[in-house]
Amino acid sequence: MDYVYGPGKNHLFVPGPVNIPEPVLRAMNRNNEDYRSPAIPAMTKNLLEDVKKIFKTSTGTPFLIPTTGTGAWESALTNTLSPGDRTVSFLIGQFSLLWIDQQQRLNFNVDVVESEWGQGANLDILAEKLAADHSHTIKAICIVHNETATGVTNNLATVRKLLDHYRHPALLLVDGVSSICALDFRMDEWGVDVALTGSQKALSLPTGLGIVCASPKALEASKSAKSVRVFFDWNDYLKFYKLGTFWPYTPSIQLLYGLRAALDLIFEEGLDNVIARHTRMGKATRLAVEAWDLKNCTQKEEWYSDTVTAVLVPPYIDSAEIVKRAWKRYNMSLGLGLNKVAGKVFRIGHLGNLNELQLLGCLAGVEMILKDVGYPVKLGSGVAAACAYLQNNIPMIPSRI
Amino acid sequence: MDYVYGPGKNHLFVPGPVNIPEPVLRAMNRNNEDYRSPAIPAMTKNLLEDVKKIFKTSTGTPFLIPTTGTGAWESALTNTLSPGDRTVSFLIGQFSLLWIDQQQRLNFNVDVVESEWGQGANLDILAEKLAADHSHTIKAICIVHNETATGVTNNLATVRKLLDHYRHPALLLVDGVSSICALDFRMDEWGVDVALTGSQKALSLPTGLGIVCASPKALEASKSAKSVRVFFDWNDYLKFYKLGTFWPYTPSIQLLYGLRAALDLIFEEGLDNVIARHTRMGKATRLAVEAWDLKNCTQKEEWYSDTVTAVLVPPYIDSAEIVKRAWKRYNMSLGLGLNKVAGKVFRIGHLGNLNELQLLGCLAGVEMILKDVGYPVKLGSGVAAACAYLQNNIPMIPSRI
Amino acid sequence: MDYVYGPGKNHLFVPGPVNIPEPVLRAMNRNNEDYRSPAIPAMTKNLLEDVKKIFKTSTGTPFLIPTTGTGAWESALTNTLSPGDRTVSFLIGQFSLLWIDQQQRLNFNVDVVESEWGQGANLDILAEKLAADHSHTIKAICIVHNETATGVTNNLATVRKLLDHYRHPALLLVDGVSSICALDFRMDEWGVDVALTGSQKALSLPTGLGIVCASPKALEASKSAKSVRVFFDWNDYLKFYKLGTFWPYTPSIQLLYGLRAALDLIFEEGLDNVIARHTRMGKATRLAVEAWDLKNCTQKEEWYSDTVTAVLVPPYIDSAEIVKRAWKRYNMSLGLGLNKVAGKVFRIGHLGNLNELQLLGCLAGVEMILKDVGYPVKLGSGVAAACAYLQNNIPMIPSRI
Amino acid sequence: MDYVYGPGKNHLFVPGPVNIPEPVLRAMNRNNEDYRSPAIPAMTKNLLEDVKKIFKTSTGTPFLIPTTGTGAWESALTNTLSPGDRTVSFLIGQFSLLWIDQQQRLNFNVDVVESEWGQGANLDILAEKLAADHSHTIKAICIVHNETATGVTNNLATVRKLLDHYRHPALLLVDGVSSICALDFRMDEWGVDVALTGSQKALSLPTGLGIVCASPKALEASKSAKSVRVFFDWNDYLKFYKLGTFWPYTPSIQLLYGLRAALDLIFEEGLDNVIARHTRMGKATRLAVEAWDLKNCTQKEEWYSDTVTAVLVPPYIDSAEIVKRAWKRYNMSLGLGLNKVAGKVFRIGHLGNLNELQLLGCLAGVEMILKDVGYPVKLGSGVAAACAYLQNNIPMIPSRI
Repeated sequence: MDYVYGPGKNHLFVPGPVNIPEPVLRAMNRNNEDYRSPAIPAMTKNLLEDVKKIFKTSTGTPFLIPTTGTGAWESALTNTLSPGDRTVSFLIGQFSLLWIDQQQRLNFNVDVVESEWGQGANLDILAEKLAADHSHTIKAICIVHNETATGVTNNLATVRKLLDHYRHPALLLVDGVSSICALDFRMDEWGVDVALTGSQKALSLPTGLGIVCASPKALEASKSAKSVRVFFDWNDYLKFYKLGTFWPYTPSIQLLYGLRAALDLIFEEGLDNVIARHTRMGKATRLAVEAWDLKNCTQKEEWYSDTVTAVLVPPYIDSAEIVKRAWKRYNMSLGLGLNKVAGKVFRIGHLGNLNELQLLGCLAGVEMILKDVGYPVKLGSGVAAACAYLQNNIPMIPSRI
Repeated sequence: MDYVYGPGKNHLFVPGPVNIPEPVLRAMNRNNEDYRSPAIPAMTKNLLEDVKKIFKTSTGTPFLIPTTGTGAWESALTNTLSPGDRTVSFLIGQFSLLWIDQQQRLNFNVDVVESEWGQGANLDILAEKLAADHSHTIKAICIVHNETATGVTNNLATVRKLLDHYRHPALLLVDGVSSICALDFRMDEWGVDVALTGSQKALSLPTGLGIVCASPKALEASKSAKSVRVFFDWNDYLKFYKLGTFWPYTPSIQLLYGLRAALDLIFEEGLDNVIARHTRMGKATRLAVEAWDLKNCTQKEEWYSDTVTAVLVPPYIDSAEIVKRAWKRYNMSLGLGLNKVAGKVFRIGHLGNLNELQLLGCLAGVEMILKDVGYPVKLGSGVAAACAYLQNNIPMIPSRI
Repeated sequence: MDYVYGPGKNHLFVPGPVNIPEPVLRAMNRNNEDYRSPAIPAMTKNLLEDVKKIFKTSTGTPFLIPTTGTGAWESALTNTLSPGDRTVSFLIGQFSLLWIDQQQRLNFNVDVVESEWGQGANLDILAEKLAADHSHTIKAICIVHNETATGVTNNLATVRKLLDHYRHPALLLVDGVSSICALDFRMDEWGVDVALTGSQKALSLPTGLGIVCASPKALEASKSAKSVRVFFDWNDYLKFYKLGTFWPYTPSIQLLYGLRAALDLIFEEGLDNVIARHTRMGKATRLAVEAWDLKNCTQKEEWYSDTVTAVLVPPYIDSAEIVKRAWKRYNMSLGLGLNKVAGKVFRIGHLGNLNELQLLGCLAGVEMILKDVGYPVKLGSGVAAACAYLQNNIPMIPSRI
Repeated sequence: MDYVYGPGKNHLFVPGPVNIPEPVLRAMNRNNEDYRSPAIPAMTKNLLEDVKKIFKTSTGTPFLIPTTGTGAWESALTNTLSPGDRTVSFLIGQFSLLWIDQQQRLNFNVDVVESEWGQGANLDILAEKLAADHSHTIKAICIVHNETATGVTNNLATVRKLLDHYRHPALLLVDGVSSICALDFRMDEWGVDVALTGSQKALSLPTGLGIVCASPKALEASKSAKSVRVFFDWNDYLKFYKLGTFWPYTPSIQLLYGLRAALDLIFEEGLDNVIARHTRMGKATRLAVEAWDLKNCTQKEEWYSDTVTAVLVPPYIDSAEIVKRAWKRYNMSLGLGLNKVAGKVFRIGHLGNLNELQLLGCLAGVEMILKDVGYPVKLGSGVAAACAYLQNNIPMIPSRI
């Protein structure tokens, strides 16, 4: 039954689902409860208040939807847009591609701005489109904050600046699946209208919650949006928010308690410290990649992602073999290259509840695997580079007595 | 943080979510895993085969969707029907009402057949409608097998007989949320086209899996169904089934292992024994209600539900007070009366991984609460009636050494 | 591997080990830790302070020994007495018998005061012995507070009164295994010199901690006690207490966190409320026994135990058959009759984290089993009697919102 | 309450308690059970059979005692020896010292053979003593297989050879606490009379089981051994073994299920593969120490331990500062230097359910800490040396699909 067994701990370095902290596992280790008792609404009320903090919003309205990131996307789109609405969407990797596919299947009129995989969203073209759109046919800008397939982080502040500059009223819908709770994300400051993430990413929970946060402008848009929706309809949630019972249908009790514990851990560490830790992890990983003399799939520093690093391998190596070896020999899970970069990149996810020594174990493992598959890596080189940086930058753990 | 604390175990007798068996809690007590490793597909393949058994189907195709029952409804409808399609739907309680509401919001042309709450679906009217529908405008019959709000079980075999009698090609879509794995359910024999349940019901898992099973005819219908869908689209699943990777988006690892353990428990007990146990529980509960001189909300024996009993209280008692007392004084969770029967009924859920002594503790508790709220119950009377029946009918536990 | 599987929850009504509350299970669901880190001593310090509260002592010194009740006995004896020392010990059932056996094997000179099983310690004889013992040859009085085999509670206040009356300096060593945290126990007020319990009893933890508390007089005695001891030597603990590292050998990290959670639950409910709950449980059980027209093994009301009830069966019934049936048919665990009362009594343990509805389920089960084995019980009679009492006496749960 | 919190996983590299595998945590996540039900004896019977395999004995009798290693020592000694008996005991570090202290306090006549800390037992002196002991005054040889404080493994085969050579009937009592299940241990082949370990060591369970195995000769000796004992008396166990109920007092249900799971994991990996994995871990660690240009506390290769490495630091460094830094900055637990080597060594435990990448994370961490405290280590050097060896020697994980 346990197909994953191997001695020791599985080293989970895919960019999601990520490692669950023990206190969260404990919090979820419980029987079901009646979600109509007074306890669950009381708990939910606090959760909704607290979850706003990870979006850095005071004006947003969050929804904890029993779904995945794909469902969260659908919730964001169908509640704010009507069939035929024009969206500008950036295709920069597999996940932005899937979101665009969803937009098309939901019958929006998607204006796709494509970049080479490894590059960020082309904001020059966005500027052009906004400049040209005098009649405001563009209803929404859809952008992934962090493209998980290529390790590319887009600059949302610039997107907001462009919208402001052109005084364009388009909604700003942001996939923060592999960014929120890990990268610097500022919903209110950047004027994001819908932001979303999944519980199994930087929140370090099991899969099962699509967490969506809507600005007042997005809520307003939802009143006239004509996309057909029931399960994902915000209005059903809002009705129950008013009643104080909060749930239009049955939530996972376990995930609610898990979310409570996950937020408590994040607030105890400090959200900004959590983000700084991810910055360290990203930097350390990139230093190792450089030391191995391998290329980052991400083409420019401005797009480097601190949650996932996609590493390009030389043409004579199949990156899938690296992932397979990691699994079969080292009890490690790395991310495959997807679609256009299949076989060409492998990915190291370094997000969620993770520390530096875990990452260094992973990097040491990657070095051995690179050697296994015939790449002339100098063993220890990546770890040395990462350690040189980390040793100067890891802070003491304040909660430790 | 634990608002539900009180000494001893919480007595969970809502008709869902239900008690999770310890072996299932154990199976789910685990870190995340990479769902793209070889392990998860191998496990999923077995799960899909085994889950068919609880539907009693050999020809159906199951989908394990990260959603709730509401999402499972939406999946059943949008994959088989197109906007404007005529459905015949039976309104007999709060959950059939909500499903009908969903059908209307999804733009189907819903032909509602209403019964008094406490009665089953009016199949005479169905017969009339089928007889009159020479041109086959009815595209689907939508029926809940067991209405959770009133404790009414509909006769699906008769529905099938009528469809056959009139040689009507309408799809038969069945909500088995509070029936499958607890009541006798025969997908293939009854020609059910889509059957669905939720993990938190008789399967005794946490909320989070909408389990949907489609007949070959339903799959065929999905090819031409024009309802807009992405997250719920079966086709995305089928594509990944073919690839052998199974998941179009991230599943909950914990729920997969939990489902494995839940199915193992059910098969160890024997599905027919599980159903027989539910029959005993239903019968015992009804005998207690009778002994208390209270009325069952369900008006005729043919509709009695073996998974939930809705008990009518005298007009001078507010049934909500009973539920509140159960919670505050006895650490017990009972079901509220909903909508039309709010204040008039309270509900005892007796489904899932539950045994007779647990139920008897509940019944004893209900007796005390009835007394608390001023109903002249003879203490012990319900328990005595239930025991008299159970003592003659409980089998030995075969797995016990 | 799970030999105990049966549908639903196992009804655990042996007088130990008892049901573990979910928050305690959660607290123990954790990896090992270095017990020499700063965290474990900090935690231990608090635990030692808090554990004194369940003994109602402010002057005692507690020891958390990785052992069982048998080991706790040995710790109490060997640290305070020397080979050849005279003890007065009361034989009133299987557990006092085993303790006496231990005292003899440890080479003390045991003056055994025997009572018929079902009676309490004969304190008249104690008075005589104390009166006669002018030269203070009696070094210790050894008494079980609650004899688990017969459900007999001894009157410790009277023992203290006698010692005071005769100004006798003998140590008072008390086995509180099935009393502490459940019955009224007052170490300081009653001048108990060593009191002890096991984690798997009213504290509702797994087996593994022998919790021993020594008065200043007992500590003083330990300095000259000549019994050979190493593992159980208090002195090794005291040495590490002084160092602030607390542990002479490796503790169970899981049990420490479990104890923390268990104490938190007890303090949240209120220790006196916990005791009152046990009083209710004992009373309710005895009312049921009376209603069944069966005899309590305990011969007088003054000795009735609120943690375990030993029920005498008519001669034509083998009580072991009752226990076997409970297990094989009802998924319930009852206590066997031991030694002299084997076959004659079965025992209902009603201690630890348990509530009234759980007990009522047990009582209903016992009624059915009695019928199974041919005893002409009126089904429901015991439950009715218990409910009539409980319905008037159960308080609201204060922690419930 | 959770003083150990810090982001990510705690890196537990003390030589016990060690990391618990997830399947073991799951197996222990359970309510208490009646240990007198038919289930627990059935389970115990299998456990006793299976536990013999980790001792490599077919003739031994195992005891699963609810105690720690210290208690297991006491069990071994008191059951086989009488006060005044002469033992030959080797003092080579803190744990052999503590065992000798116990032997003395239990009133044996201990003939101490001391070595410099960092050296193994002086077997030349043993030879001399055996040669001189014509009247067989030596009743037992007491030896630790692996001294946890200095990382020294003694050669038991040689001890047996000497006993055989001199046809000396002394019992051979072996502390296998940090060896059994990790190092090559052969009870029958080496004629070990009592071998013992603790659950929290290579078995990778929580603390709480002292596992002791007695040869037929040791059992025979127990019949005439005059040491006072009750809790630790094998005879009480043997009595219950005969009855088929197995337990003279309450075992920890959770540890029994945990032991079941731990043995299953070990047998699935293969005991010899487990040992080979420990060989790799030891070798890799020593290569790192060498690369750091630090000295191993263990003075000769023949004594190198594959479960723990004690690393000597230069005189200008306090090794306690290394352990403190590991804890406060890197969420890592290392072993302190004890007693004579306090401040001079820190210890890396590499035993139990652990894999190579975990160790490499630890080694990388140690490098950073060494730099932190002013040792001029070349970052990455130890990892590089370990990887160079491991990359050639790690096998595929056979259980992986």
